[in-house]
Amino acid sequence: MAIGPVSQSNGASALPLVRQLSNDHDHVLKTFRLLISDLCQQFGGGHPGGAIGMAAIGIALWRYVMRYAPHSPDYFNRDRFVLSNGHTCLFQYTFLHLTGYKAMTFEQLKSYHSDRVDALCPGHPEIEHEGIEVTTGPLGQGVANAVGLAMATKNLAAKFNRPGYEVVSNHTWCMVGDACLQEGVGLEAISFAGHLKLNNLTVIYDNNQITCDGSVDLTNTEDINAKMRACGWNVIDVEDGCYDVEGIVQALEKARAAQDKPTFINVRTVIGLDSKVEGMAAAHGAAFGAPDVAEMKKKHGFNPDEHFVISDVTRKFFQDLPARGESLLQQWNELVEQYSAKYPELGAEFQQRMRGELPPNWKDLIPSSFPEKPTASRASSGLVFNPIAKAIESFMVGTADLSPSVNMIWPGKVDFQHPDLRTTCNINGNYAGRYIHFGVREHAMCAISNGLAAFAPNTFIPITSSFFMFYLYAAPAVRMGALQHLQVIHAATHDSIGMGEDGPTHQPIELAALYRAMPNLLYIRPGDSEETAGAWIAALEAKKTSTIISTSRHALPQLKQTRRDGVAQGAYVLEEADHAAVTLIGVGAELSFALDVAQQLKETKGVVARVISFPCQRLFEQQSLEYKRGVLRRHQGIPAVVIEPYAPNGWERYADAGISIRRFGHSLPGKAAYKFFGYETRVMTAKVGDYLDRLERGEAQRGEFVDL
Amino acid sequence: MAIGPVSQSNGASALPLVRQLSNDHDHVLKTFRLLISDLCQQFGGGHPGGAIGMAAIGIALWRYVMRYAPHSPDYFNRDRFVLSNGHTCLFQYTFLHLTGYKAMTFEQLKSYHSDRVDALCPGHPEIEHEGIEVTTGPLGQGVANAVGLAMATKNLAAKFNRPGYEVVSNHTWCMVGDACLQEGVGLEAISFAGHLKLNNLTVIYDNNQITCDGSVDLTNTEDINAKMRACGWNVIDVEDGCYDVEGIVQALEKARAAQDKPTFINVRTVIGLDSKVEGMAAAHGAAFGAPDVAEMKKKHGFNPDEHFVISDVTRKFFQDLPARGESLLQQWNELVEQYSAKYPELGAEFQQRMRGELPPNWKDLIPSSFPEKPTASRASSGLVFNPIAKAIESFMVGTADLSPSVNMIWPGKVDFQHPDLRTTCNINGNYAGRYIHFGVREHAMCAISNGLAAFAPNTFIPITSSFFMFYLYAAPAVRMGALQHLQVIHAATHDSIGMGEDGPTHQPIELAALYRAMPNLLYIRPGDSEETAGAWIAALEAKKTSTIISTSRHALPQLKQTRRDGVAQGAYVLEEADHAAVTLIGVGAELSFALDVAQQLKETKGVVARVISFPCQRLFEQQSLEYKRGVLRRHQGIPAVVIEPYAPNGWERYADAGISIRRFGHSLPGKAAYKFFGYETRVMTAKVGDYLDRLERGEAQRGEFVDL
Repeated sequence: MAIGPVSQSNGASALPLVRQLSNDHDHVLKTFRLLISDLCQQFGGGHPGGAIGMAAIGIALWRYVMRYAPHSPDYFNRDRFVLSNGHTCLFQYTFLHLTGYKAMTFEQLKSYHSDRVDALCPGHPEIEHEGIEVTTGPLGQGVANAVGLAMATKNLAAKFNRPGYEVVSNHTWCMVGDACLQEGVGLEAISFAGHLKLNNLTVIYDNNQITCDGSVDLTNTEDINAKMRACGWNVIDVEDGCYDVEGIVQALEKARAAQDKPTFINVRTVIGLDSKVEGMAAAHGAAFGAPDVAEMKKKHGFNPDEHFVISDVTRKFFQDLPARGESLLQQWNELVEQYSAKYPELGAEFQQRMRGELPPNWKDLIPSSFPEKPTASRASSGLVFNPIAKAIESFMVGTADLSPSVNMIWPGKVDFQHPDLRTTCNINGNYAGRYIHFGVREHAMCAISNGLAAFAPNTFIPITSSFFMFYLYAAPAVRMGALQHLQVIHAATHDSIGMGEDGPTHQPIELAALYRAMPNLLYIRPGDSEETAGAWIAALEAKKTSTIISTSRHALPQLKQTRRDGVAQGAYVLEEADHAAVTLIGVGAELSFALDVAQQLKETKGVVARVISFPCQRLFEQQSLEYKRGVLRRHQGIPAVVIEPYAPNGWERYADAGISIRRFGHSLPGKAAYKFFGYETRVMTAKVGDYLDRLERGEAQRGEFVDL
Repeated sequence: MAIGPVSQSNGASALPLVRQLSNDHDHVLKTFRLLISDLCQQFGGGHPGGAIGMAAIGIALWRYVMRYAPHSPDYFNRDRFVLSNGHTCLFQYTFLHLTGYKAMTFEQLKSYHSDRVDALCPGHPEIEHEGIEVTTGPLGQGVANAVGLAMATKNLAAKFNRPGYEVVSNHTWCMVGDACLQEGVGLEAISFAGHLKLNNLTVIYDNNQITCDGSVDLTNTEDINAKMRACGWNVIDVEDGCYDVEGIVQALEKARAAQDKPTFINVRTVIGLDSKVEGMAAAHGAAFGAPDVAEMKKKHGFNPDEHFVISDVTRKFFQDLPARGESLLQQWNELVEQYSAKYPELGAEFQQRMRGELPPNWKDLIPSSFPEKPTASRASSGLVFNPIAKAIESFMVGTADLSPSVNMIWPGKVDFQHPDLRTTCNINGNYAGRYIHFGVREHAMCAISNGLAAFAPNTFIPITSSFFMFYLYAAPAVRMGALQHLQVIHAATHDSIGMGEDGPTHQPIELAALYRAMPNLLYIRPGDSEETAGAWIAALEAKKTSTIISTSRHALPQLKQTRRDGVAQGAYVLEEADHAAVTLIGVGAELSFALDVAQQLKETKGVVARVISFPCQRLFEQQSLEYKRGVLRRHQGIPAVVIEPYAPNGWERYADAGISIRRFGHSLPGKAAYKFFGYETRVMTAKVGDYLDRLERGEAQRGEFVDL
C-alpha cells in the first residue's frame, strides 16, 4: 500500500493488491472458518456462527483496508476497530493472531473458553488486551463507542491538523450485527452520528438475518437502508458478503472516501457458513459438534483429523502486515516530527495530549473560596469546573439536552458540530468545539463518552451531564466506562427529593444504591461549594476510574466546617465531641440537616451529637481501618444515624439507624417534599432522640439497623 | 357522534360536528392557552410551552375523536391516551377538567405546582389518578407503553371478538414531543410496533422543533417521516397544528381507519404560542412572567386582571361529552350483554379477565415436587411457570431474543404476531398468540409490558425475560412498573458469576443492589426448584408489585431443606442449631455453598453453624421483628456471614461479614469463575473460621461489617 509522505488519509487503493492476492482468498477463508469451528469445538462452547459469516469482511479490513501496526498496537493515528457484536470475538482474536499482534500467540488464541485465568481471549473483547479498542458485549454499546472514537478524531484533527500536516486522520470501523441495530443505544448513536456528519465513521452490518430466537423477521421487518438514509448516512450494499472480498474492499474504500456523511455498509452474510446449521439460529451460540466440524473439513479438502491448522499459504497471506504497520508508524512519526518543528507550540500540546497529561497547574484553576450565600450545588459544579473546562482542551463536555439546568457552560464555549451546521437558533458548528449537545439521548451520551475516553488514555476526559435520575437510562454505559477503567465524569444534578415538583419519576430514591455498589465508580454527593470542589478534584485525579458528581437543584447553605480535602477521604468529621451520645451522618444536599439536628438535640434534649460528612462511600472504603474508626467511632460504642432521603441500602455498613426513604417520592415543591417525608429539623430531632431512648431501654439494639 | 349498535370501531366521522362548532375554536383555543399560562404563573413554575402549542390537538382528540366516558373513567373499551411528553401534563389535566372528569375539579386543576399533598396535578401524569392511563415523565417510556396498550387491545380482540360483536375495539393515542423520538426506548418501540402492524395505534408528534437546549437541529437533523416509513408506519403531515382543528381531526380519523400499519401524525406546532418566548426553548420549562401573561390576554381581548377564566362558551363547548361517554358505555354494555348471551363461556371468561382474576386453582398447576437431579434454576422457572402460562390466558410472555436460554416456552405456544406474518423460519403469526419475540430490545420489552399491564388492572400479567445483567438496560422501565404498582414479572436468568465465560460484561456484580433498593419491587433469588416455585407464587400473589425472579444458568443441587412457603417470608431457617457459633446466609444459586461450608466447618473445625436461606430481602422486611430475629438470631450474639458473589451493599443489615465481590467479574467457565473468586468450600470455610477467630481475639467487631 502506498502511503503518502504527508497525508495519511489518501492512501492509494488496495484493489490492485486484492486482485494480486485473490487466488489465496478461498483458501484463507476456509482456513479461517475451520479454525473458528475448531476453537469453539475444543471446549464445546462459544459463538462460531457470526465469526464464520464475517470472514471475508475480516480479510477486507485487516489485510487490505485498515491502517494499523500490529507490532505497535498503540500507534496513535491507527484506524480504530470496534466489534459491537462482541460475542463474535473469535473473529477479532483470530485476525489479531494472523496479522501478527505479538500478545495473541497461537497458544493464547486457543485459550478461548478455557479455564486459563490470564487468557487474552475472554468471552467478549476487553480493552485491557492488545489490539482491542473497547470492551464490548452488551449490544449496541459498540456503535456508540465508535461514534465517540470518530468524534475524538474529528476534534483532534480540527484542533491540531494544519495544511499538509494531517497528524490525526484515522478512520473508525464498527462491526454490528442485527441486534446492535435493534438496541436503543445503537439507534440513538446512529441518529446523532448522522447529525454530526461523521464521514470518518463506517458501520459494517453483518446482515445474516439471524438472532438467538430465529430469523430477524420474527421481530424486525423495517427497511434498514431507508432508515439509515433518513438518519443521514450513506448506504452501500454488498450482496455476497461471504466470498466477495473485492466487493467489500471497494465498499470500505468508498466509505473511507465519503465526504460528508458516515457510511453504513449492508453486507449480506450467512451465519455458520458451510456447517450443518448454516443460516440458522443454532449456529449462533454453540459449537457445531465434532462430526459436523469434520464434515466441513472434508468438504473443503482439509484433513478432518487435524485441528487448528493454519497453513503456510495463510501465514504468508498476512505476513507483511507488521512491516506495513511499522512503515505506516514511521511515516507518521516523521510527519509529527516535521509538524512539531514547524508548529512547536502545537506540537508540544499534541504530545501532552497524547501522553494524557493535564497542565500541571490545573488545580489552581479551581476557586480557593466561594460565595457565602446559599448556592445550589449544581451551580457550585459550574463554579468549580467551568474554568477548567475553558482552559484545558482535554475536556469534552456534553449534556443530554439539559444545558439550562446543569450549569456546565463556560464563557465562550464552542459547540462540537459539523462546520457546515447553521441551526435555526443561530449556532455555528465547529469540530474543534468541545461542548456537545447530545440531544435527549442519555444512554448514547455516556456510551459515546466512553468512546471519546477510549481513543487514547486520558487524551480526552469526557464530561456528561443530566439529571441524576436519568443516569438510570445511561447506567449500562456508565457501567461499561467503569469496567474499562475510563476516566469519564458524570455531572448529575437534581439529586434527592429536594428537586421537587417533577415528582417520583424524577426523584432518585434507589439509584445511589446502584452506583455505590458499582465497582470502580466514585459516586460523590458534595454538601456545598467547598465539597463540590473536593468532588471535582477527586474525579479529576482518578485517572482510571469513572465518577458521578451528584448535585442539588436547590440552593444549599454554605458550611464553614466543610473541607475539600475531606472529600478525598470519603468521609470526615465536621463537628467532633468527646462524649458524644450519637454520630449524625450528613450527606450531600442534606448535609446541613445533620448539623441542624445536632444543634437542636443539644438545645432541646441536652444530647451531644458529633457530625460527620460522608460524600463518598468508595473513597471512604479506601482509607485505613484506623482512619475509618476515627471518623465513625462506632467501635467506641457511639451509635450512628445517617440522614439521607434515599433508600438506606448500604448505609447499614456505617450506621445503626437511618432517616431514609423506602418508598417512591412525591410530587411537591422541594421544601414541601422534604416536609412530607419528615425531613424537618424538629421531626428528625425527635426521631433521633427516640432512637437513643429505645437503645437505652434495650428496645433497639446496635447491629440491628433501624429505619427511623 | 353516531355510534353503531354493534361495532364500536366504525363510528361516523366527526367532521360535520367540527364544522358546526368551528366558530368556537378560536375562542376555546385562546381560553385554553391563557389558562395554561395562568396555571404556571400562579406558583411561578411548570411547563407551559408544550401544552399551549398542543391546544388544537387536544381539542381534536378530546372534543371530537377519542372515545371515552368522563364519568366512567374505567370504561373498559375506552380509547387509551398516553402523554409520552409527560412534562406537558397541564395539557391533559386541563382537558380532563374541561371534559368533565369528576375528580379533576377546578380547585384540583389549580393545585399544579402547589404544596397540596393530595393534589391530582403532580408534575407528571400519574396512573393513580382518574383519566390517566400511565405514569409518564421519563421520556420515551410513553411511546412504548402505548405500544403495549395497543397490543393488549389486539390480543383481547383476537381472543374475544366475534363477527358482529367487537367487544374490544379501542384505539390508542400517544402524544410525543421531539425528545421521545430521540430516546432509545422510543425508537425500539417504534420499530417493534411497525413490525407488528398495530393499526390501532397512533403517535401524534408535537413537532415544535424545540427542546431544552434550543432548536432541535442542534442535535437531530434526520428525516423523521422517512424514518417512520422505513419502520413500517403510515405518515400524515399536519402543517398548521396550532389552529387547524379540522385538519387534525381528519388526520386522526384517517389514523383510526388505518388498515395495516400504525400511524404517525407529524403536527407542526409552536411552543409557547403568543407568548414573548414563542418558538423558543425558554417557553419549555418556566412560567412566562406576569407581564407577558397580561400581554397575551390583552392581545386576545381578554381581561389581563382576570385569572383562570373559563368562559361559558368554553364550558358549553365541552358540555355534552359526559353524556356522550355514558351513551358510548351503555351501548357497549348492551353489546357485551348480547355477546355473553350468545357466547356464554367466552362472556364469562371476558368478565373474569376484566375483573383481573386468575382461575382460582392456578396454584395447583405448579408441580408439587421436582426432579432430584441438579437443575439450573432457569430450567426450574420453566417447570414451575410454563404450565400456568399455557393454561391461563392472562399471561403474555416475552423475551428479548433469548428464547433458547430463558426456558419460558410452553408446549404449543403461539407467537403474538400480525396474522399476515410468515417468517423465513416458518412462524405464522396470530394476535391471539401470547408469546412475544421482542427482539434485542430489553428496554422496550419492559416498557411495553408496563403498557400491557396498564390496560386494565391484572387483565394482563406480562412476563419479560432476559439475562439478569440486561435488566440494567431495562431498568428505567422496570422502575416505572414498580412505581405504577403494575404486576409485571421479570424472569431474569444467568445471574451471578456462575454464568461463566461471557465475562464481566455479563456478570451482574452490583445490579442486585439496585433492585433490592427499588421500592415496590421484589428481587427474588431462589436456590433450587422448590424455591423457584416459591418465587413464582410470591410474584403471582403480588397483584400490585413488580417482581424479578433471578435464576442461574448452571445446574444447582436440589436441596431437601428448601420450602416454597419459606420464600414468601423472604428468609427462613434451613438448618437450625441451638448453640451455633455462626449463622451462614445462603442465597440463590449459591445457597448450597452455605450448607457445604456449614458441614465443613463442623467436620474440620468442630464449629457449629446454622444456615438460613435468604431469597428476598424485601419480603423479609415485611415480616415481624419477632420472625426476623428468630431467623437471624443476631440479637442473641450469633454473628452472621452472607455468601453471595455480588457486591455486599445492603447485606450489612443482616450480616456481620460477607464473602462478596467488590470488583467486576472475570471471563472464565462457571466453575473456574467461582474458584477464581474464592467460592470453593475449602476457601470459604477457612475465611469463616478466620473471621470467627478474629472476632474472638477482638480484632474484628460485630457491627463493623467485614469483607472476607
